[in-house]
Amino acid sequence: MTDNKNTKNASSIWGGRFDGGVSSVMERINASIDFDRELYRQDIAGSKAHAAMLVKTGIISQDDGDAIAQGLDQIADEISQGQFEFSAALEDIHMNIETRLAELTGDAAKRLHTARSRNDQVATDLRLWVRDAIDQIDADIKALQASLVDQAETHAATVMPGYTHLQTAQPVTVGHHLLAYVEMLGRDRSRFADARTRLNESPLGAAALAGTSFPIDRDMTAKTLGFSHAMRNSMDAVSDRDFAVEFLFNASLTAIHLSRLAEELVLWSSDRFGFITLSDEFSTGSSIMPQKRNPDAAELVRAKPGRITGSLIALMTILKGLPMTYGKDLQEDKEPVFDAAEHVMIALAATTGMMRDLTFQPDAMREALMHGFATATDLADWMVRVLNLPFRQAHHATGAIVALAEKKSCRLDELTLADMQSVLPEITNDVFDVLTVDHSVASRTSLGGTAPQLVEKAVKAARKQFDL
Amino acid sequence: MTDNKNTKNASSIWGGRFDGGVSSVMERINASIDFDRELYRQDIAGSKAHAAMLVKTGIISQDDGDAIAQGLDQIADEISQGQFEFSAALEDIHMNIETRLAELTGDAAKRLHTARSRNDQVATDLRLWVRDAIDQIDADIKALQASLVDQAETHAATVMPGYTHLQTAQPVTVGHHLLAYVEMLGRDRSRFADARTRLNESPLGAAALAGTSFPIDRDMTAKTLGFSHAMRNSMDAVSDRDFAVEFLFNASLTAIHLSRLAEELVLWSSDRFGFITLSDEFSTGSSIMPQKRNPDAAELVRAKPGRITGSLIALMTILKGLPMTYGKDLQEDKEPVFDAAEHVMIALAATTGMMRDLTFQPDAMREALMHGFATATDLADWMVRVLNLPFRQAHHATGAIVALAEKKSCRLDELTLADMQSVLPEITNDVFDVLTVDHSVASRTSLGGTAPQLVEKAVKAARKQFDL
Amino acid sequence: MTDNKNTKNASSIWGGRFDGGVSSVMERINASIDFDRELYRQDIAGSKAHAAMLVKTGIISQDDGDAIAQGLDQIADEISQGQFEFSAALEDIHMNIETRLAELTGDAAKRLHTARSRNDQVATDLRLWVRDAIDQIDADIKALQASLVDQAETHAATVMPGYTHLQTAQPVTVGHHLLAYVEMLGRDRSRFADARTRLNESPLGAAALAGTSFPIDRDMTAKTLGFSHAMRNSMDAVSDRDFAVEFLFNASLTAIHLSRLAEELVLWSSDRFGFITLSDEFSTGSSIMPQKRNPDAAELVRAKPGRITGSLIALMTILKGLPMTYGKDLQEDKEPVFDAAEHVMIALAATTGMMRDLTFQPDAMREALMHGFATATDLADWMVRVLNLPFRQAHHATGAIVALAEKKSCRLDELTLADMQSVLPEITNDVFDVLTVDHSVASRTSLGGTAPQLVEKAVKAARKQFDL
Amino acid sequence: MTDNKNTKNASSIWGGRFDGGVSSVMERINASIDFDRELYRQDIAGSKAHAAMLVKTGIISQDDGDAIAQGLDQIADEISQGQFEFSAALEDIHMNIETRLAELTGDAAKRLHTARSRNDQVATDLRLWVRDAIDQIDADIKALQASLVDQAETHAATVMPGYTHLQTAQPVTVGHHLLAYVEMLGRDRSRFADARTRLNESPLGAAALAGTSFPIDRDMTAKTLGFSHAMRNSMDAVSDRDFAVEFLFNASLTAIHLSRLAEELVLWSSDRFGFITLSDEFSTGSSIMPQKRNPDAAELVRAKPGRITGSLIALMTILKGLPMTYGKDLQEDKEPVFDAAEHVMIALAATTGMMRDLTFQPDAMREALMHGFATATDLADWMVRVLNLPFRQAHHATGAIVALAEKKSCRLDELTLADMQSVLPEITNDVFDVLTVDHSVASRTSLGGTAPQLVEKAVKAARKQFDL
Repeated sequence: MTDNKNTKNASSIWGGRFDGGVSSVMERINASIDFDRELYRQDIAGSKAHAAMLVKTGIISQDDGDAIAQGLDQIADEISQGQFEFSAALEDIHMNIETRLAELTGDAAKRLHTARSRNDQVATDLRLWVRDAIDQIDADIKALQASLVDQAETHAATVMPGYTHLQTAQPVTVGHHLLAYVEMLGRDRSRFADARTRLNESPLGAAALAGTSFPIDRDMTAKTLGFSHAMRNSMDAVSDRDFAVEFLFNASLTAIHLSRLAEELVLWSSDRFGFITLSDEFSTGSSIMPQKRNPDAAELVRAKPGRITGSLIALMTILKGLPMTYGKDLQEDKEPVFDAAEHVMIALAATTGMMRDLTFQPDAMREALMHGFATATDLADWMVRVLNLPFRQAHHATGAIVALAEKKSCRLDELTLADMQSVLPEITNDVFDVLTVDHSVASRTSLGGTAPQLVEKAVKAARKQFDL
Repeated sequence: MTDNKNTKNASSIWGGRFDGGVSSVMERINASIDFDRELYRQDIAGSKAHAAMLVKTGIISQDDGDAIAQGLDQIADEISQGQFEFSAALEDIHMNIETRLAELTGDAAKRLHTARSRNDQVATDLRLWVRDAIDQIDADIKALQASLVDQAETHAATVMPGYTHLQTAQPVTVGHHLLAYVEMLGRDRSRFADARTRLNESPLGAAALAGTSFPIDRDMTAKTLGFSHAMRNSMDAVSDRDFAVEFLFNASLTAIHLSRLAEELVLWSSDRFGFITLSDEFSTGSSIMPQKRNPDAAELVRAKPGRITGSLIALMTILKGLPMTYGKDLQEDKEPVFDAAEHVMIALAATTGMMRDLTFQPDAMREALMHGFATATDLADWMVRVLNLPFRQAHHATGAIVALAEKKSCRLDELTLADMQSVLPEITNDVFDVLTVDHSVASRTSLGGTAPQLVEKAVKAARKQFDL
Repeated sequence: MTDNKNTKNASSIWGGRFDGGVSSVMERINASIDFDRELYRQDIAGSKAHAAMLVKTGIISQDDGDAIAQGLDQIADEISQGQFEFSAALEDIHMNIETRLAELTGDAAKRLHTARSRNDQVATDLRLWVRDAIDQIDADIKALQASLVDQAETHAATVMPGYTHLQTAQPVTVGHHLLAYVEMLGRDRSRFADARTRLNESPLGAAALAGTSFPIDRDMTAKTLGFSHAMRNSMDAVSDRDFAVEFLFNASLTAIHLSRLAEELVLWSSDRFGFITLSDEFSTGSSIMPQKRNPDAAELVRAKPGRITGSLIALMTILKGLPMTYGKDLQEDKEPVFDAAEHVMIALAATTGMMRDLTFQPDAMREALMHGFATATDLADWMVRVLNLPFRQAHHATGAIVALAEKKSCRLDELTLADMQSVLPEITNDVFDVLTVDHSVASRTSLGGTAPQLVEKAVKAARKQFDL
Repeated sequence: MTDNKNTKNASSIWGGRFDGGVSSVMERINASIDFDRELYRQDIAGSKAHAAMLVKTGIISQDDGDAIAQGLDQIADEISQGQFEFSAALEDIHMNIETRLAELTGDAAKRLHTARSRNDQVATDLRLWVRDAIDQIDADIKALQASLVDQAETHAATVMPGYTHLQTAQPVTVGHHLLAYVEMLGRDRSRFADARTRLNESPLGAAALAGTSFPIDRDMTAKTLGFSHAMRNSMDAVSDRDFAVEFLFNASLTAIHLSRLAEELVLWSSDRFGFITLSDEFSTGSSIMPQKRNPDAAELVRAKPGRITGSLIALMTILKGLPMTYGKDLQEDKEPVFDAAEHVMIALAATTGMMRDLTFQPDAMREALMHGFATATDLADWMVRVLNLPFRQAHHATGAIVALAEKKSCRLDELTLADMQSVLPEITNDVFDVLTVDHSVASRTSLGGTAPQLVEKAVKAARKQFDL
């Protein structure tokens, strides 16, 4: 991460902006090599597949094909080893590579672009890149699910307040709470998987926009590059960026889920809650308050939906009202995608790290449940079930009993039977069985409920379903 | 659409705002009946399914169940016939219906809410509503695809300029151009279908957040309501609004596709293009310029991504950083969804209408192709194919010939062979075969290309694939 | 708020959508009378000003002018009393009013539109509406500032934890905390005031886009309508919607400020904090937990930036890349503005109500300060000031003392002098003077600091500056 | 722009992500030095001002103050000359500089942070940076205004079609059209100026959040740094990012204005319009179509609102619902601001370049006016003025005449008087005076109208008002 003195200087944004006059302005707005070099692996893979197809269909010779393949491999090495000289004058990664290829192979390089255009080339590269990103993100989400499931297993029976409106509503188990996030993340993976299937079509061979008169084999290049098939309409192929938008949306929603969990980590690690202790690794101290564990990582994860939804809006704004087919506006598609991928990955990694390393504080959570009459619903349900009161009446009677407890400053299970009966004479001593926190969670055995034994089963089911 | 004097007065936004003092402020911010009445059908269906399950599991009696079912049917009739008195004091559609049910059935109504909470109830209602909306939108998109495919069939061989950067690049066929939109819309349908599968799980029975101790049968209610299964985690069930966000995203991307087509309709119907004539129905005239056809509908369709992506941002902003489980913030989920559904539907209907009714002007499109050297690529490809020139050299030679034609103010096919040979002596008379617009499109026979015979096949394939 | 059976039916979004065939689709997308009736007062004021000018410049007769003025007054009455029959077939508020005027005055009405166009008319109406909205919002923000200042005065010396990262950092006073919001809101008012100045130019008389050949007096209509002057460029006048975008931004940022305060109200009113008690009016109970005060109003205020920034994005998306001058896209400008105005107003009213009615719990806040070593900074500052230690060294020594206190499970002021000196021998007994919460806040007397006497002064200054 | 082999490798986004294990994840999410080094000038200026004040108030010695000032100057030189070694382990620019200062000055450096905190320090730095950016942007907008005014002067009388709905509505002058953008940009400058005034308050001395007990002089540091005064509330001072949001909004609206002009440049330079020729510098050719001038720069400018409004949304999303005071979420404030500043500046520079260098094609614009009956309004206005017809009747009669001309395929001024009189017998030969394009524009002399002599005056007025 430390890139010392060799990057552009600080305050360079407007330092020396127009040194080169007009042409420097155009170069600055037009050249993309500063960011699209990120595509080099995909560009080289695409060119190799295209060249092999040109050989196979007899459009270029085997010798030219071999020279191209060797040249491209060498360029890949040069770039990965940091020995490639990128040139802004050559504008983009495609011309940087093609120009270098011409240095290495001469005429062969000049035949590479036969039956191809920058338009289908860049569309192919970006699809391949996004596909790779999806695969990485899927693995990252899975790792987070695994860390959540592990904690859920450990805390399948650990009770904590279940909140609505950030007010204590009912007791739940920590495991149950964490598994809710496993579900959200499962949907995220499912959304990325759908997007992957949808994007996995090959634009290569659409040429500039209309197709080509060369006898190319688009199915062959599609197959070589791992696409399921060639795109059916050449104009759509070069102008479509749906896959990038959909990727940005999926990253946004994943980031939103992470922000919800991050908010809970911030709350739980605060003085007032004390439900968890974050590890030293994922909190920052203060030289002056060494006991402090500022949840910096959690706050940063909470903030990430900002930039990622910002990137989504960026690309949607660009595409709105854009006529067919390729416009240079589309050059602005890459940076949002790269930034979103990077930051959703780092947010996932940080959340996985925090989740794996944090320590729950069961005593504090149980203590918190002693306030707030968290088992009032259990009392009302008992009246419905045992006394056959209509639900709305049972609620009313329970309200009166809770009010009594509040007046006496005691918990529900600290009331006497006489207290209870003063509100509803039919109440019997059995009622006290349902008023404890542990009984409450144990009783919630309806499908998907918080009962510890259900949580244990849910842990197993999640491991199986999500392949954890 | 005309709702005369009975709606709220104009300028009511701040007229008489605080008449009722504090409680009126709270009612205004808190009550949702003005918009969530939209959910009445889904709420009644959900309650009927819940009541039937309560009977089946013995939690309430058959008599109560029957009374509830009949009462709910009556309420459905009252609402659909405009005879229901909605009350803001009762806050939302759920309490409006339950209160009316109590009037009709007494104690039975009070038992309906057993083992259920507002939290799982509203989550169920909104899922059902979004599912219905998806089904309608799928039909609407399909209708638009059909109108595009019909025009594509008619104009499979009609030539028009194919644009990049809004500059003439190569000739394409109108049919090919329109089929690109059929592809986009096909992806939209696929995205909605994926979303439908993902949302089709039942939250009902999750109760407030923790599940319930009543022996409910969540699979039964799920099945009755057409859900594929019950959601696996009760906390996720009541707090999840992913399905609403995903719906808003899918509506946004569909609207963006429509805005691209709308932009083209605005351009094509302008004086400067004249490629199409919009029907009287879908344009507005001017009393003073009766020949004018302002593309108002197209402009409004072009604008629709504004409000729809606005709604997407609205819900994403609300969800960001929201701790579990239910917070009243979630009440703000419905209006964006309702507004987006309404406006994507009307945009689809208007686009279908415009597309079905418009008239293409083949002469104007062919005339437009006479400028801009649209077959320059064909010339270069000929050099590569026939003369075996490397692609980059062929491009260079073509550039010189185009420059010559520009200097002589003639078309490429109006140059003499001698003109051509002055640039590249190897050129033969055969070259003129490839320089016509019709030859150009006919030659683009690569998979997905613009050749008329491919367009005809693509029309058939689209009808089959998209069930048009 | 209760608008019973007379509004459109629930589920009307897609109920009976295409009854009227094609023309009904066009009417639905094109007609704006459902929302632009909100402009009726402004439209009538604009028409009256225009007619008076036409008379003054001799373009129409005095008699026609009188008839128009009387007719418009009558129409204003009809609308305000709910007796006006709006017609969707007449599309918008302008034609609804003009058509009614023709019924009332005959030929005079037909002269009203001389030297005017729908384009400058609607631009004028919306500017006037936004100006009115700004004036109302300014008053609403001021009311909220007043309620905050009142509480700040009451709690100028009440201590509470000052948080960074939601971790206790230093003690602050409640008054100081609340005055931070008074500052934010002051900037909001300043932003609205700037926007008001900027928008207060008259588009009237720009006609369709080019101006007019009639000898109109644009300064006169500008003056009559309270504008500071006529806009300088007719094309800008009809196409500009900057004022609406700027209004939406200002509403968004105000809503964000309210959401920050709302988040604090949610936290402070939670079980875990208990710093405030919300009034019954602004919280919702639960039939089953009568002691509960769900902060529904605060949660809804917290959610409002969603829809308001959504509206901002909506209009920015619409305007992006729109060529001059008027396009029907601009019809989508009104609903976002109306919705944002309504919801920022209700959020302001609800926040003012909550703030005025809530009760702070000083004991709970002081108790919270007993944890977290909130006066550690005071200790370090004492070392710098009294012992002349470099700041970074003082921090280091303080850290060691805090660690000692944590090990001993005591507060800093419960350590002995010997404990302190074991870390830093130079420490004297005087140190204990700075370790209390009250001393801490009292010592923060730097400009803008939290010391009670500064808060008292700040209350007075705020009242004066913001005219509260 | 060419930063060869020394930057991070392509595909580095997920290459070798977790090499360093947990701590590398935390470093990647937490360290900000990669972007906040951009603040180095402002950070050093702030520290120098703070140190000078500490000396003046006797909090540190003159010797320490001198050492600090010299050390900071040396660091500024090191950074500006690319000789500074940034360290990610030191997290941010503040600690990078302070650590280097300690190497250079020893204990003096350790006293610099007295009565200051990272919280007020970073708030100060970013305010200073945004203020500098505003000053630069104001100059950039002014340069664009100047180029527009120059072209407007040249083309004060050049006619072109004035469009509504992209349909020819009335003739306008090119100068008038361009001056509409000068107005928009004038409002942009006014908005930036207001924002500059509002942000120009000093947070320095607010310390962590509560102020300090040291006898600092905040007015002195404020004055030194060019702020108008010290912020009034210390908690607001450290948590406020309004100035950054407002900057992002202003940049967004400016970018939207540029996108509208860019759209027009794309249209005007297209085959179908041909109203302008872009210079070689600001268009890209094609090796194969050398005559082509793809408007790449204009398309990129058109796309810029995407990323800039995306940045606005990013920061608004982050701030929504954030409790006081400082949270690490705020670290995500800088990148959106830096990116927006950079791209609005480059968009301004590119637009200024395009506008200065392009050539209008008066013949093509005049030819375009020969279609579309652009003077129909002039005909109707003549009837009102000369024949005293009510406006709506005049419109009706004009419509009939236009229909006649359309039937005869001729222009309005090619109709005979008899043709005219067949519709309206009162028409006299004088009518033909108003039917030419040149008469039309010349007659639009109402304030702000398109008449050439008004445009000439408006050019002068704009130069004066905007100091061009």
